[in-house]
Amino acid sequence: MKAVRFVETGRLAEVIDLPTPRPGPGQVLLKIAGAGVCHSDLHIMDEDLGLKGPFTLGHENAGWIAGLGVGVEGWKEGDAVAVYGPWGCGRCHACQTSMENYCENHAALGTMGGGLGSDGGMAEYMLIPSPRLLVPLQGLDPIAAAPLSDAALTPYHAIKQALPLLTPDATALVVGVGGLGHMAVQILRALTPARLIAGDIDDAKLAHARELGVEHALNTRDGEAAAQAITDLAGPRGVAVALDFVGAQPTIDLCARVVGRNSRLSVVGLGGGVVHYAANRPPYGCQVTVPYWGSRTELMEVISLAADGRIRADVETFPLEQAVEVYQRLREGRIHGRAVLLP
Amino acid sequence: MKAVRFVETGRLAEVIDLPTPRPGPGQVLLKIAGAGVCHSDLHIMDEDLGLKGPFTLGHENAGWIAGLGVGVEGWKEGDAVAVYGPWGCGRCHACQTSMENYCENHAALGTMGGGLGSDGGMAEYMLIPSPRLLVPLQGLDPIAAAPLSDAALTPYHAIKQALPLLTPDATALVVGVGGLGHMAVQILRALTPARLIAGDIDDAKLAHARELGVEHALNTRDGEAAAQAITDLAGPRGVAVALDFVGAQPTIDLCARVVGRNSRLSVVGLGGGVVHYAANRPPYGCQVTVPYWGSRTELMEVISLAADGRIRADVETFPLEQAVEVYQRLREGRIHGRAVLLP
Amino acid sequence: MKAVRFVETGRLAEVIDLPTPRPGPGQVLLKIAGAGVCHSDLHIMDEDLGLKGPFTLGHENAGWIAGLGVGVEGWKEGDAVAVYGPWGCGRCHACQTSMENYCENHAALGTMGGGLGSDGGMAEYMLIPSPRLLVPLQGLDPIAAAPLSDAALTPYHAIKQALPLLTPDATALVVGVGGLGHMAVQILRALTPARLIAGDIDDAKLAHARELGVEHALNTRDGEAAAQAITDLAGPRGVAVALDFVGAQPTIDLCARVVGRNSRLSVVGLGGGVVHYAANRPPYGCQVTVPYWGSRTELMEVISLAADGRIRADVETFPLEQAVEVYQRLREGRIHGRAVLLP
Amino acid sequence: MKAVRFVETGRLAEVIDLPTPRPGPGQVLLKIAGAGVCHSDLHIMDEDLGLKGPFTLGHENAGWIAGLGVGVEGWKEGDAVAVYGPWGCGRCHACQTSMENYCENHAALGTMGGGLGSDGGMAEYMLIPSPRLLVPLQGLDPIAAAPLSDAALTPYHAIKQALPLLTPDATALVVGVGGLGHMAVQILRALTPARLIAGDIDDAKLAHARELGVEHALNTRDGEAAAQAITDLAGPRGVAVALDFVGAQPTIDLCARVVGRNSRLSVVGLGGGVVHYAANRPPYGCQVTVPYWGSRTELMEVISLAADGRIRADVETFPLEQAVEVYQRLREGRIHGRAVLLP
Repeated sequence: MKAVRFVETGRLAEVIDLPTPRPGPGQVLLKIAGAGVCHSDLHIMDEDLGLKGPFTLGHENAGWIAGLGVGVEGWKEGDAVAVYGPWGCGRCHACQTSMENYCENHAALGTMGGGLGSDGGMAEYMLIPSPRLLVPLQGLDPIAAAPLSDAALTPYHAIKQALPLLTPDATALVVGVGGLGHMAVQILRALTPARLIAGDIDDAKLAHARELGVEHALNTRDGEAAAQAITDLAGPRGVAVALDFVGAQPTIDLCARVVGRNSRLSVVGLGGGVVHYAANRPPYGCQVTVPYWGSRTELMEVISLAADGRIRADVETFPLEQAVEVYQRLREGRIHGRAVLLP
Repeated sequence: MKAVRFVETGRLAEVIDLPTPRPGPGQVLLKIAGAGVCHSDLHIMDEDLGLKGPFTLGHENAGWIAGLGVGVEGWKEGDAVAVYGPWGCGRCHACQTSMENYCENHAALGTMGGGLGSDGGMAEYMLIPSPRLLVPLQGLDPIAAAPLSDAALTPYHAIKQALPLLTPDATALVVGVGGLGHMAVQILRALTPARLIAGDIDDAKLAHARELGVEHALNTRDGEAAAQAITDLAGPRGVAVALDFVGAQPTIDLCARVVGRNSRLSVVGLGGGVVHYAANRPPYGCQVTVPYWGSRTELMEVISLAADGRIRADVETFPLEQAVEVYQRLREGRIHGRAVLLP
Repeated sequence: MKAVRFVETGRLAEVIDLPTPRPGPGQVLLKIAGAGVCHSDLHIMDEDLGLKGPFTLGHENAGWIAGLGVGVEGWKEGDAVAVYGPWGCGRCHACQTSMENYCENHAALGTMGGGLGSDGGMAEYMLIPSPRLLVPLQGLDPIAAAPLSDAALTPYHAIKQALPLLTPDATALVVGVGGLGHMAVQILRALTPARLIAGDIDDAKLAHARELGVEHALNTRDGEAAAQAITDLAGPRGVAVALDFVGAQPTIDLCARVVGRNSRLSVVGLGGGVVHYAANRPPYGCQVTVPYWGSRTELMEVISLAADGRIRADVETFPLEQAVEVYQRLREGRIHGRAVLLP
Repeated sequence: MKAVRFVETGRLAEVIDLPTPRPGPGQVLLKIAGAGVCHSDLHIMDEDLGLKGPFTLGHENAGWIAGLGVGVEGWKEGDAVAVYGPWGCGRCHACQTSMENYCENHAALGTMGGGLGSDGGMAEYMLIPSPRLLVPLQGLDPIAAAPLSDAALTPYHAIKQALPLLTPDATALVVGVGGLGHMAVQILRALTPARLIAGDIDDAKLAHARELGVEHALNTRDGEAAAQAITDLAGPRGVAVALDFVGAQPTIDLCARVVGRNSRLSVVGLGGGVVHYAANRPPYGCQVTVPYWGSRTELMEVISLAADGRIRADVETFPLEQAVEVYQRLREGRIHGRAVLLP
């Protein structure tokens, strides 16, 4: 079968031929319907993240069960499923509650998941080490589902953590209305009654945010003016929850300026910025966090939201063979919504 | 009456004579039993915190009701009470749930509370603007109660926020076993089954921590060795909740190194350090916060804990007239436990 | 001024002339814009609930501040406000967090609130014992706001308690789409992504539920068939949260049959039914509760929801003088939405 | 190997010889150290609970791994483990978060777990269907651990659900200080600062409760007097959390009388009583529930508590061969603490 491989840091991905894998005991073989193309893959190719190649890329995967290893019960061939991405040890306290994204033994595992150290989904078939990592699609199209396993699950997790603060009279701020941010906006609308502000430096993305139901979408290129406008909108309470999907220094600084006391600042984007938290800046009681992906049950909930038509990822599809070119387009900002490779 | 006054930044406190105040409508006059002496007072005298003098110092107060303004119902003269310290607007969402420490309108108030912009409790009598700021003592000695309103309430609030993480198999770390830290240790013991590590650079304080039931008390002067020892004790999960009652750069850095994923790092001490939070350092999912004081109902709970004998502040008493000397001793580290001034 | 008075059990309300009250220290005088007419008033007139007349009826009130007693700060004449209904002691742990609906000292108070033992809002003016019971209207029309203080606050509280169970893949059931139920449906839509089923025995009300965004509205006259239909819709997990706004034996029994394990059954309607909870019926882990009204901050949140246009009560207005006739129409089921009396 | 078998309703257990099982793919073979003897087993033998015999009894099990089926990773022979008892489907939302006790598909499984439809631990060896059901013992003696998997896990779960209500000024009531109740008392002490009242009709058990740190232990034979005494102790707030480990009508009625508003009443004991919940009786806002067992991570926490010496089950051991006699002693109330069978 064809597969898109990461070989080593500093080298482009390669499309090669590999033998189709066979499921061992307890494993599941998946026929891939689609694999999402994520900015993180560029990081993997550009920087040394401690992931040892070669392995097949693709950590946003969905498809159909094509084979069951001995001992796998409760599933059958043909079942349409999404693959949960951050693979933990499965045994620790965190994994037992389905939060493998915070696996206590992650440092000892040598892989972060399929496409992140282990073979991923940019291939015709993919091996899943355990059925606990599968989520039924509830009728959702697998190609639409693939990118949700990261691009929707990651903001969903960040928002769920913040839910108690998102009361009707609270203000939520989303900075960066791209791949994850445009999902965040939809998830906030579906899950909370909070007032919604979105910021971006790209007016097209702001227009998109307005289409998705955001009351106030404003350009944040001028940080000073944006901070003032957000503060005026949020009132004396300030922003209750700021979600930064860029994570560069200017966006982090903007968020830190506008949140109120007893608030939450989640930096989801890995844009290289740093939160500097000294006494009362951000304000007292602000909870600053850098969340990572989401839990297995949160993926179940994301799939339900999408199956019910409450959220939807904008998807552009490409044949698997064009992977190298698609990564190049991603690097140049020429992908609209989320690119999905089809084997 | 005698009163200990802050006059202006850079000047020592002064003990002067003032007329005894009379309660206006809705106010309560308190006869002070004791007023705690806090490091924050030194900050007020040394730095410009935006608090305008002159005013009477003392923000850890307890005593007996000595007069009720018209319209005050449900209280009577002689009632023994502690005074809740961070005075908010009383009307916003935060204040309505008793969290005046996170009052949304704090910036517009011009005062942070009695002894912090308004006249405090280092005097024979003190005016309380509303009975909502009073907590009955349930039989507790008012002199013992006074310092609890800050030295116990502040760690209590920080610990309450972290409770869901403090399961039996989790590890809590307290850095700095001084005025607030030695209360934190007792509160953790009373409220949680977590495993307990305490760190300090003073061996006498570590001995104190052991007396208070801490399993592992270790000297953190060598940060490298301390981090290794804590990591060994906490195991792969890492520290679940780190409470830094020093807040200097070395203690913050120590905490940031030993917390695990999905953890909490609360910087309570105002030692001038900064948390630098970039991707994955502290680990993903760590929630960093600088909490401030506590809520009115949390003070009710603190008073109950002390009235039940579950927590106890070490108190050293002095006559009010010696205030200037006591501040000098505090500055030189020559106060054991908490100093309380008696009018 | 004209006022609608409850005199004693078994006697109709009376409209009489009373002197306009004047605010004492700490009190606020309200010029009433509208007072909601509630089924509870019929209970007060029909049964001995322990409330001693005479007093002015009306516990769903909104209007404008017309006078401030000495000592009231932070408010001014003309401010438009809703009145929080369940008046507690204001001092206990519950009241301090704004949950006066669960005041610990309620038994000792001798009144449940304005219109419920104390003089209420069916008059030109009403005395409010403390400004803590006022919520600013944020631009909302006071006549629209009045009924929200009960008809929206009560379901809002019941739903807030159940929020953690209302994930995207969960099913919520609302039984009884009348005054409170039609608000519940809107609140569930605004606050949660849960799948929504509404049941009623009146097809017009079911049509209304569908207009308000309910996916599945079904007639529950045949309890057996309704239970089957709901079970089919909810799947093996069962209903996660059932809200019974009727509270008669058939509706309670229906809810108890369809909830799943680890669910919640809230009986809000006072229809005389009883929940019989024996081992595993309702299923294990179901949490059964009879909630009462809501908290002060929940009313703030309800007002925000309405001011933002997310919820809306259907209101029919009448002059205050027609109160007796309006009660008669209410008794005969001839009020559509909520009746509001205008002085 | 020897095994204690349930054959059919109405028949005594039998000790017979069975072939030692072998682990299939994904399964684990356990060498049993001890199996707890539980009242539920008598229910199984006496009443038709829908469990089809024959199967080996014993649902409180601990021992050492003696064999690993193909595909089982992360465990090795000799590992000391406790067995999680309520076996669910492993795939639903509840099971994914480790709450197999509330498995959504329980009705379709045909078994409730080992010793409850499937072969349990009253034998030399036991087959565990998946390693997800194992909890490492952290150095705890397996014989001491076995009964904790039910007798401690069940109250632990009930208490964890109630934790937010168990503040320092709250009162918890434990009714029935037997096998589960004497664990509940220790768990409450370890996890909460609440004031503690224990009730029982057996003075020896009340003496035991006092030894375990209960402030107020009182005889509940006279329900009227007991209710009055509890109400006096709890004050106007009433009991915040009542845990009934008897579940007979008199104990349920006692609990329902003494709980306050916004409280919790958990009926854990299956004594045949019924909670009748009508408007305001139990008081408004009381949450009534019949919890079932606990989750996998709660068992991890229970094992940690015991390994740290914070809780301890009183255990009396017997050879496996005496199973029939031990059941008879249990029936006659002649077991002190928990009986554990040793193969």
